[in-house]
Amino acid sequence: MFIGVDYYPEQWPRERWETDLKLMKELGINVIRISEFGWTLMEPEEGTYDFSLYDDAIKLITSYGMKVVLGTPTATPPAWLIQKYPEVLPADENGVTIGFGARRHYTVNSKTYHLLSKRIVEAMAKHYGDHPDVIGWQTDNEYGHEKSDRSYSEVDQEAFQEWLLQKYGSLEELNHRWGTVFWSQTYDNWSQIPVPRKVYQEHNPSLLLDFNRFCADAYTAYNRMQVETLREHIREDQFITHNFVYTGLAQDQKAIAEDLDFISFDNYPVWGGLAEPIKPAAIARQHDLCRGTKNGKGYWVMEELSGAQGWSQIGYLPRPGHLKLWTYQAIARGAEAIVYFRWRAARFGTEQFCHGILDHDGVPRRKYKEVKDVIDSLKRRGDDLIAADFPAEVGFYHDPENDWAWQIQPQSDQFDFIQEFLRFYEPAHALQVQGNIIRDDVDLSAYKVIVVPIYFLTKKGFNEKLEQFARQGGTVIFSYRTGVKDQDNVVSEKTLPGELSNMCGIEVHEYDSLRGSRSATVKGTAAPLEGLSAESSVWCDFIEPTEAEVLATYEDDEWFSGRAAITRNYVGRGQVYYIGTGVDRSMLLPLYEAIFKEAGIETTDTPEPVEMVTRVGDDVTYVTVLNHSVEESFDVKLPAGKWIDASNGEETFEGTLTLKPLQSIILESSN
Amino acid sequence: MFIGVDYYPEQWPRERWETDLKLMKELGINVIRISEFGWTLMEPEEGTYDFSLYDDAIKLITSYGMKVVLGTPTATPPAWLIQKYPEVLPADENGVTIGFGARRHYTVNSKTYHLLSKRIVEAMAKHYGDHPDVIGWQTDNEYGHEKSDRSYSEVDQEAFQEWLLQKYGSLEELNHRWGTVFWSQTYDNWSQIPVPRKVYQEHNPSLLLDFNRFCADAYTAYNRMQVETLREHIREDQFITHNFVYTGLAQDQKAIAEDLDFISFDNYPVWGGLAEPIKPAAIARQHDLCRGTKNGKGYWVMEELSGAQGWSQIGYLPRPGHLKLWTYQAIARGAEAIVYFRWRAARFGTEQFCHGILDHDGVPRRKYKEVKDVIDSLKRRGDDLIAADFPAEVGFYHDPENDWAWQIQPQSDQFDFIQEFLRFYEPAHALQVQGNIIRDDVDLSAYKVIVVPIYFLTKKGFNEKLEQFARQGGTVIFSYRTGVKDQDNVVSEKTLPGELSNMCGIEVHEYDSLRGSRSATVKGTAAPLEGLSAESSVWCDFIEPTEAEVLATYEDDEWFSGRAAITRNYVGRGQVYYIGTGVDRSMLLPLYEAIFKEAGIETTDTPEPVEMVTRVGDDVTYVTVLNHSVEESFDVKLPAGKWIDASNGEETFEGTLTLKPLQSIILESSN
Amino acid sequence: MFIGVDYYPEQWPRERWETDLKLMKELGINVIRISEFGWTLMEPEEGTYDFSLYDDAIKLITSYGMKVVLGTPTATPPAWLIQKYPEVLPADENGVTIGFGARRHYTVNSKTYHLLSKRIVEAMAKHYGDHPDVIGWQTDNEYGHEKSDRSYSEVDQEAFQEWLLQKYGSLEELNHRWGTVFWSQTYDNWSQIPVPRKVYQEHNPSLLLDFNRFCADAYTAYNRMQVETLREHIREDQFITHNFVYTGLAQDQKAIAEDLDFISFDNYPVWGGLAEPIKPAAIARQHDLCRGTKNGKGYWVMEELSGAQGWSQIGYLPRPGHLKLWTYQAIARGAEAIVYFRWRAARFGTEQFCHGILDHDGVPRRKYKEVKDVIDSLKRRGDDLIAADFPAEVGFYHDPENDWAWQIQPQSDQFDFIQEFLRFYEPAHALQVQGNIIRDDVDLSAYKVIVVPIYFLTKKGFNEKLEQFARQGGTVIFSYRTGVKDQDNVVSEKTLPGELSNMCGIEVHEYDSLRGSRSATVKGTAAPLEGLSAESSVWCDFIEPTEAEVLATYEDDEWFSGRAAITRNYVGRGQVYYIGTGVDRSMLLPLYEAIFKEAGIETTDTPEPVEMVTRVGDDVTYVTVLNHSVEESFDVKLPAGKWIDASNGEETFEGTLTLKPLQSIILESSN
Repeated sequence: MFIGVDYYPEQWPRERWETDLKLMKELGINVIRISEFGWTLMEPEEGTYDFSLYDDAIKLITSYGMKVVLGTPTATPPAWLIQKYPEVLPADENGVTIGFGARRHYTVNSKTYHLLSKRIVEAMAKHYGDHPDVIGWQTDNEYGHEKSDRSYSEVDQEAFQEWLLQKYGSLEELNHRWGTVFWSQTYDNWSQIPVPRKVYQEHNPSLLLDFNRFCADAYTAYNRMQVETLREHIREDQFITHNFVYTGLAQDQKAIAEDLDFISFDNYPVWGGLAEPIKPAAIARQHDLCRGTKNGKGYWVMEELSGAQGWSQIGYLPRPGHLKLWTYQAIARGAEAIVYFRWRAARFGTEQFCHGILDHDGVPRRKYKEVKDVIDSLKRRGDDLIAADFPAEVGFYHDPENDWAWQIQPQSDQFDFIQEFLRFYEPAHALQVQGNIIRDDVDLSAYKVIVVPIYFLTKKGFNEKLEQFARQGGTVIFSYRTGVKDQDNVVSEKTLPGELSNMCGIEVHEYDSLRGSRSATVKGTAAPLEGLSAESSVWCDFIEPTEAEVLATYEDDEWFSGRAAITRNYVGRGQVYYIGTGVDRSMLLPLYEAIFKEAGIETTDTPEPVEMVTRVGDDVTYVTVLNHSVEESFDVKLPAGKWIDASNGEETFEGTLTLKPLQSIILESSN
Repeated sequence: MFIGVDYYPEQWPRERWETDLKLMKELGINVIRISEFGWTLMEPEEGTYDFSLYDDAIKLITSYGMKVVLGTPTATPPAWLIQKYPEVLPADENGVTIGFGARRHYTVNSKTYHLLSKRIVEAMAKHYGDHPDVIGWQTDNEYGHEKSDRSYSEVDQEAFQEWLLQKYGSLEELNHRWGTVFWSQTYDNWSQIPVPRKVYQEHNPSLLLDFNRFCADAYTAYNRMQVETLREHIREDQFITHNFVYTGLAQDQKAIAEDLDFISFDNYPVWGGLAEPIKPAAIARQHDLCRGTKNGKGYWVMEELSGAQGWSQIGYLPRPGHLKLWTYQAIARGAEAIVYFRWRAARFGTEQFCHGILDHDGVPRRKYKEVKDVIDSLKRRGDDLIAADFPAEVGFYHDPENDWAWQIQPQSDQFDFIQEFLRFYEPAHALQVQGNIIRDDVDLSAYKVIVVPIYFLTKKGFNEKLEQFARQGGTVIFSYRTGVKDQDNVVSEKTLPGELSNMCGIEVHEYDSLRGSRSATVKGTAAPLEGLSAESSVWCDFIEPTEAEVLATYEDDEWFSGRAAITRNYVGRGQVYYIGTGVDRSMLLPLYEAIFKEAGIETTDTPEPVEMVTRVGDDVTYVTVLNHSVEESFDVKLPAGKWIDASNGEETFEGTLTLKPLQSIILESSN
Repeated sequence: MFIGVDYYPEQWPRERWETDLKLMKELGINVIRISEFGWTLMEPEEGTYDFSLYDDAIKLITSYGMKVVLGTPTATPPAWLIQKYPEVLPADENGVTIGFGARRHYTVNSKTYHLLSKRIVEAMAKHYGDHPDVIGWQTDNEYGHEKSDRSYSEVDQEAFQEWLLQKYGSLEELNHRWGTVFWSQTYDNWSQIPVPRKVYQEHNPSLLLDFNRFCADAYTAYNRMQVETLREHIREDQFITHNFVYTGLAQDQKAIAEDLDFISFDNYPVWGGLAEPIKPAAIARQHDLCRGTKNGKGYWVMEELSGAQGWSQIGYLPRPGHLKLWTYQAIARGAEAIVYFRWRAARFGTEQFCHGILDHDGVPRRKYKEVKDVIDSLKRRGDDLIAADFPAEVGFYHDPENDWAWQIQPQSDQFDFIQEFLRFYEPAHALQVQGNIIRDDVDLSAYKVIVVPIYFLTKKGFNEKLEQFARQGGTVIFSYRTGVKDQDNVVSEKTLPGELSNMCGIEVHEYDSLRGSRSATVKGTAAPLEGLSAESSVWCDFIEPTEAEVLATYEDDEWFSGRAAITRNYVGRGQVYYIGTGVDRSMLLPLYEAIFKEAGIETTDTPEPVEMVTRVGDDVTYVTVLNHSVEESFDVKLPAGKWIDASNGEETFEGTLTLKPLQSIILESSN
């Protein structure tokens, strides 16, 4: 498998290159990503190209037997470009221009910028498109990151109007579907439609949702332009990818990915603003998103954290063990190559405090040794492991349009999309039940259980698909605020949960937003929840069962008490659960356990910070066992049979395995 | 009496109209407000008018025997208007233009906007001014709401300069009264005077106060233009009103009201940003403000909340009982008509989550039944009740200019104008002592006690009026920071409390702003406070009595201890109290009780969340009893005699009445 | 010595002037500062000068035998100037123009503003440059205050580009030293370089540091223009000064001071935003900064707080005793003149609530008496005291460029430059060990101990100087994050602490930013810390001793435990301490005590809020003893011998002195 580093030869004296490459070689590195911020080097003035620095670097790299991934440098348009074409600069909601001085200072809607980008991409493609050791390309860098996903300049406004014209064809249609009759917003000319700049109060939610779609499409189109430009000139076996971030951007990674050979991901479990790493399930969710982006296809981690990160603020220092742990987790969940960010911390520039395998002084130490240990440990079975299947009997529905709809209307100040998604994802993770994150286009029959959390913005076709899935014996889990909106971000005219009402066997006539520190108490009233009691937050749907069975009710409230909070409905041969409130883990975990049991999915009882991931190869089954705790050791009960340490094929385990803090191990067993 | 709904026929398919009207009819509705956001419908392009939709709607409405109130649609200028006349858009303190996309996107200082508004109002007035079932008009909608009260564009700047010229006549006068000699701000040309855009540090407080007055006058003038335009064309018996909000805007509701037949109010005890309803006294204060706006004249609640409210954030769900409770409270305190907002929740647009009597699915349920119950219960005595007197022996002074002066200089970070006004209002409310909120123009002799809270910006004439009132036997209650400023927002040259010093029999030589979590301890030293001890916050005036008697002193402080905190002075036949610190309720309640007792005002001892409001008709006295608690029942001691349930004339109560949570009842007794 | 007031005759009726001056005379005042905001009075229209008001005021002042200090009025450019030359207005990071309406509304980079300033300064200098009672001049007022230190207009951008051209000579050099190869920021034209306006993410730290230097230089140049203009026309014995603020501005007070005869300082231990005064050591630090600005030369307090302060928010009321305490502290630490701000609180303008010796009513009361007591008490020995030496054996290194570097990259959200400087300054203050705040230009041999806190941005020459100092027997104390950066704000290529590594006898291979509420535990492992345990915050350097001895280690952490936190190294005849974490006072105090003991510096054990300052005159030694506590009395052990109350030469003290809350006293003893 490919294990590499992100390297910036332009940032170091040429005298140092040889030292770096020797050290990389000793480490076991076999691929290097370069050039993604090198525009001024490659095109020092408009139309003049100079690839000599990267030519030299690549020559040296390949002399050490390593391969190269090239990044197109469009995330950082040069000073000369901005000076000559200032119209490419983006603007914020107040109309303030985002200036030159950092990165991503372009609006993806600028036709000028498309042309200028195409030229540099084309020049690179012509120059390197046939290079034997250039194995692939990364387009741009982290599309949309740092708020660059939404721009509000006049260029953007015109592009938005054009996009709307394409989508709606007529203003009558747009006015009707947006409900512009509300507040007298009817448009009689496309040029009247604003981008959502500062207003008193708030914009029309239908406009806002379309603005998000428009922003996403703009990036898809921009990336497609790069991909098509590359494809014209590069060898067929050079791959094209892009390194995504997955944080609620106005971006559709899946749509962009259709033009890519595979996707890449930048994996930072802790960043500059964080006092400690995000939760294991939160990292796992990101990998599942990656794996789901091209429906199960493996992906690269193009930037894998290798030290403390940050710009002007530095985050938590990853402890010894974290690098292996997070690398193993990435591979176990679907990454087929790992590229560490970065080889060495830069001495200058905004990212001075993005620490790498080496720190500023360039001396290999603890982190170097840890990476070496990781690479060595993967030599024996790495290639086989990444080729093995990731079995999954559960699907988690995730759709960026639904995320945007929630961003537009969070409805409760306790609501956070990722946290709430995790609320309904984490219990499966804790039970070591593997799932895929899916869109509406997948074949549901591959799954036993589909979890559809906070399914606010619905898709008609998917609603029908879910019902069919249930009828045929599947289990569906819905949460509060299901079925509220259609694709125009308009509220359903049907009684909630709208189109899902029949399937759930319930109606929701009333609901309460839990704001501030408000919470509710939920009591289990029927198996499997009988006798349980838990707190809930964020939201309460008060459920009226029409067909469904009540599993839990609200209590301790003058008016809520006795109203249904969680229900189960039998539909055909299947079951549909509705969890009407943000109930906490103490009730969700037993509920999920029972649901999985009934659905015939095996669960595993492990201590909370321990994660186990199973991959099934042709001959061998792999179980990666990860202890995410920095402080505690845990005894983990292994699946039946004998397990061998996959790193050396020697040590054998059976029954219980004791994992020290941050210890991680890949085990194998013959099928 | 009129009980109605806010209805938006344009937002629903015509096929639904008949269903809606049948349901309204069954509910007992007799009036409907329409059209206040319907500009593009009525003037789809400049100068072309089309009233067909509202004609049809009104025809149907009147066929059900209901009356219509029309809103002029100027809160939502159309897209074509903004595109053609972008100069009508307002700007914020940074000069950022507030764009099209929500509502209230106009500056009231635009002469262009005056002309365009006049045209649509005139067209409506000509069309509907003689309609037999159109009983009245609402101008625009919620003037100044959502920060639209203050705009900082160049248009505003020119208008401000013109306003100042009218006010001051000469720059010499302005320079003198503003004290522009401070920091070399002397103007030698009107065109130099800024609107208070972003500066380092802060603007001149005299300019800031005048800017607030200017903003208020601009709205008064704008409304007058609409009223005069309407009056030219409409039948004399069609009323003209406006639905106000009362939240510290740069607006003078009383001045605007002079041009209106009566005022209206939008009553939302809980809104999108709130986890729970505001306190009963806070709601009561708003009704008292309404009743005071035209010196006791009844008003309409043009929007009475009928469900959970919010834009992108949804607030607390009103519990069963809240609708009746808040309706009864409104009527008891002076509302003579109730229009529920809104008939049905909109499926699209920014206010999707403003829930109505019906929710999005249009099915009548709990809220419909509750409103029906309210309407039924008012049939027997509603008309008589709203005609009955609201007896009041206490006046609370409230003046928006004083509010603005505090907004400009809050002086302590603990200070909030409404909270501090409530500090000195709530004890009377708790003691069921009825009061009117007054300005300086009223006849004080109608009252026994005048409370003048946080009277920072003084009016010379009112100062004299208060002294005369006291001399003639009245009681006056002042608070900390009394008498500091004159009408130019300039500090008094006299020793504090300035012009009120003699009357209070005290001087204030020193004071301390209590910031952060600082507080002080106050100890009662003479009757009626002897033996009491309380915390105070926000501010400490250290009082030097000249004539006054000390009732309480500061303690537990190296330097404060023993300094007077609360005093009483005898002036002629009356008494003047000075409460020099933000002392808490535990001391204010007994103080107010003693003051009222001495002034011959009856107080009633009720549990805290219970409110009783008395109205005295020609033959019958009404007592509305409200339990604001969501959780607790209370036994309430009724006034002497037999009381009958006014909703049915049947049930009789005497002595003690037990109120369940959120229960409310109107009782009657023959005079 | 000079003791005076800041007086604004223009703000009061002429009839009042005589009253004021009589009261001042009785107070003992001998100098008055005037005119620093009087531009429109002196130049009511462009090119027309009128000094009559100040002529009259000065005539009256001098008739009372007092002297005058004149302020040039350039902090408040008039309305006519801004209207005619709007290009002088500054802009914020978003490009929003800072408007007219407050003060400091000019960018110091405007050549137009230089010309206009020069003209008014020249006119004043010609008019008053030979006045016998004008003893000196203050240029402008509080340069850079209220965020006026950094402006981002186009004028600023051009000036920045010019400044960079002067500094670097070539773009090659600039590109190289800024590392613009990072993120493709290479400039090929000076006009491409931005001022750091809004960007996605963050600007290049090297650009940011240079922008701070540029801003500082711009003020230095602006002040020099004023000084040179004055010097051409004024009498040689008229001094020129400027009243500085010391709060992390992009300003180099020391550089500006080179053009001044002495510096001045505005001393506000409590301000509008503060619920209580800053800590005694924090005030002391500011005085030490003042004294250090011209290497020990005495300074004026040009504004000494005399009442509660604030603009729209009022701060804590100074208690009786505070005025004397803070005046004595100022004089003891180096002030040689005190001018109280302000004579009387203004009735109008933004600073209405800056209270003075008199309040708005103009009646002399407590504060007047307190100031009189201060002045009387200084008559006997004031002149001798201010001439006495301030002995200091400790130097604290402080460099604004290092402060700016930290502002650009605070690295931990717990980091605050002043608080962290105080962490390593306060223990000396608590031990009554006197020190000077120094730059790299001083002769270190005058000191026994040099404290170099948070020495992030290093100077090569100073590094060498420190090593030499240590070799020759001196003691150096470093803190965490030492030696990270060079003068280009580029990270050292050497292993940390970079150039200081040898000297400290350590290496730092890893470090952890403690964010949020994270902390670490440190345990003393060798004398003088053995047995001690303390919490630390902000940052942890994990130290690898190469030569140094370990004094304390981290504990209670899976991975930290046992790593060195505090070390001592012997270098030549000296010692070098490295304190690798933000350890709290409970460990720093004994550490400093031991270090001082070993260095032969006497420490004094006093209760915490007590400060003692020693001054050594030709014949007499003075000890000023200050009890900063508002609540507690303390027994203070005096230095050996008999001590006399310097205010009267009568009372004698020996052994222990009991100080009441806020009591302060100056004692003397013959040498």
